[in-house]
Amino acid sequence: MTTIEFWYEFASPYSYPAAMRIEKITAQKGMKVNWCPFLLGPIFKAQGWEDSPFNVYPAKGAYLWRDMERICQAQGLGFQRLSIFPQNSILAARLALSAAVGEKCPDFSRHLYQAEFAENQDISRPETLKKVLAELDIDAESAFAEAASDEVKLLLRRHTQRAIDKNIFGAPSFVTADGELFWGNDRLEQAVAWAGG
Amino acid sequence: MTTIEFWYEFASPYSYPAAMRIEKITAQKGMKVNWCPFLLGPIFKAQGWEDSPFNVYPAKGAYLWRDMERICQAQGLGFQRLSIFPQNSILAARLALSAAVGEKCPDFSRHLYQAEFAENQDISRPETLKKVLAELDIDAESAFAEAASDEVKLLLRRHTQRAIDKNIFGAPSFVTADGELFWGNDRLEQAVAWAGG
Repeated sequence: MTTIEFWYEFASPYSYPAAMRIEKITAQKGMKVNWCPFLLGPIFKAQGWEDSPFNVYPAKGAYLWRDMERICQAQGLGFQRLSIFPQNSILAARLALSAAVGEKCPDFSRHLYQAEFAENQDISRPETLKKVLAELDIDAESAFAEAASDEVKLLLRRHTQRAIDKNIFGAPSFVTADGELFWGNDRLEQAVAWAGG
Repeated sequence: MTTIEFWYEFASPYSYPAAMRIEKITAQKGMKVNWCPFLLGPIFKAQGWEDSPFNVYPAKGAYLWRDMERICQAQGLGFQRLSIFPQNSILAARLALSAAVGEKCPDFSRHLYQAEFAENQDISRPETLKKVLAELDIDAESAFAEAASDEVKLLLRRHTQRAIDKNIFGAPSFVTADGELFWGNDRLEQAVAWAGG
């Protein structure tokens, strides 16, 4: 079965519409998605940015929010301009990689994006994360204990390093089995076509 | 007749495939294209970049060239990785705005992109520009004299300022009659749909 890697970051606006439609698009082609959460922060820092490029470059930022409104409307997704942006996504990413979340990682990710971008909730707050875990019948205590462990912290650092090794510089990104990289929500269809779906 | 503004920069790789297909896509919808050459250099400088972001950020640059190969192949366009990038596009942009080029501006722009990205010719060189002008039966002497005039220099500065006033931060960009901005070659279809085509 053909697999496509989906590299996403919980603070990334354009990762949200991609996360919401990738399973449908790949399922139509008989493909499987490998959900790969990672952190863009270390990659941006290495480029000299201490903040999101959407904040660093105001014209780009103004465009982002309007563009997200249009995309979410076209896709039938809720959307609000965030009160806090970018949000600290470290705890969310660690939880996504915990064994407690495990195979529910795609559901966890979609529910969290919904809370963040449709409901303007702060995903750095344990309350937001606990609510999402409860929606999915995941034991929050185990998940948080794991997220605080050296093992999961190391796993996330390894994930982010793997992203860098694949020359990923933004999110969402898609990588096919033959190593082709596609960047951006609007390239999902192209990536799936490349993967031979 | 519905008009769409096409803001492009001769040094911008992604402006090339957009320039090559915009007339076909808009003609199918009965729309007219307003060709608006401008300079990204002053906009990038205001953001603190002294070079193309594709050079400033190596992972983004490596992606650009591979992505351009894929796009041009899919669109049936010639493409070579440029020996000199970005190219100095000031003279090209001034010529495009000259009365000597006039209504041949779309043809001039397409021929110049062909020379640059399909044939790896340096568009800052007068020889390259003269060859393109000759292909289109445009008097090179008049065009070059105009391009050196204060009037055309001012016209290009005004064009670039108009782009800034429209919150344009990259190329290609498309602006519809109601002021909606779309950034990127891959947003052309969306811009045309928005324009009511």
